[in-house]
Amino acid sequence: MKADDKVVTKTVTSAAAGAKTAKGPAKASDKAAIKSAVKPAAKAHAVINAKWLNKVKWDEHGLVPVIAQEAGSNDVLMFAWMNREALAKTVESGEAVYWSRSRKKLWHKGEESGHVQKVQEIRLDCDEDVILLKVTQDGGIACHTGRHSCFFQKFEGKGDASGEGDWISVEPVLKDPETIYK
Amino acid sequence: MKADDKVVTKTVTSAAAGAKTAKGPAKASDKAAIKSAVKPAAKAHAVINAKWLNKVKWDEHGLVPVIAQEAGSNDVLMFAWMNREALAKTVESGEAVYWSRSRKKLWHKGEESGHVQKVQEIRLDCDEDVILLKVTQDGGIACHTGRHSCFFQKFEGKGDASGEGDWISVEPVLKDPETIYK
Repeated sequence: MKADDKVVTKTVTSAAAGAKTAKGPAKASDKAAIKSAVKPAAKAHAVINAKWLNKVKWDEHGLVPVIAQEAGSNDVLMFAWMNREALAKTVESGEAVYWSRSRKKLWHKGEESGHVQKVQEIRLDCDEDVILLKVTQDGGIACHTGRHSCFFQKFEGKGDASGEGDWISVEPVLKDPETIYK
Repeated sequence: MKADDKVVTKTVTSAAAGAKTAKGPAKASDKAAIKSAVKPAAKAHAVINAKWLNKVKWDEHGLVPVIAQEAGSNDVLMFAWMNREALAKTVESGEAVYWSRSRKKLWHKGEESGHVQKVQEIRLDCDEDVILLKVTQDGGIACHTGRHSCFFQKFEGKGDASGEGDWISVEPVLKDPETIYK
């Protein structure tokens, strides 16, 4: 679920919040400073209210499940969640930004590990409640365990009614997580 | 989310429930009948309590998200949910059985459409709360719209902060849904 889910990302409204702290009559130079500070937030505001974001059926928590798939190999790398702001930021930045349910914060994938996901394509399913992200995976590692994909445990069992079976790790660790998250 | 989510599948306990309706002293022939009715349920019971099912972190609703991916092409076909019983039945039968959240029933994918998914491999992610199913898709159609994949709507936008963009259908309908669901 989380991959390298360790990063706090500023919200799109942070620039606007900063601008509001300016007090008293503004000089021309101050005005320019405020304008440039407000501008990114105003732009983000345009995105956050975009029609295409309204088409997504957000769940009762305002989230949508997201599948990250590697462009080229088509490997499924990971699964995560996005809220409205995360999807807006993903489109704006061209890099995957998720919503961390455990930390209740935006999570710019790879900000700490360097394993950024560059977005090649964004798909929406028939019911408009699941997103598929086609990405280029920096470092070739999506998983916080240092593996290419988070789906490295394979079910091995008889497939009969005996109930016997187990999940076996079948993919190599490409990089020690200790060296990824220093 | 749902693909051809129209099918009701009997629960694994139905055979046992049937056996319980037998009343009075049983004849030898009745006993044999009861035994054969109970046997499949007892087998299913062994699976439902299997250790490998306990390793999956079921959510607060007893569900786990499932990604269905086509073996060979690696195309992501659809996204659905499973409960414990659905995953047990998937392993037992070798065909994808999901849990329909809208109908609150087991859903043997393709039972009505014929678009069964034959399971080639089952994977679990690093956090053990998401399943990846590698399947062979009968008929080459996973989506209830008659398309290969449910993810046929592509985001097309400037990728800038203008907020302009839309979801465009980019995959062909391979078969008219009217002829799939007669």
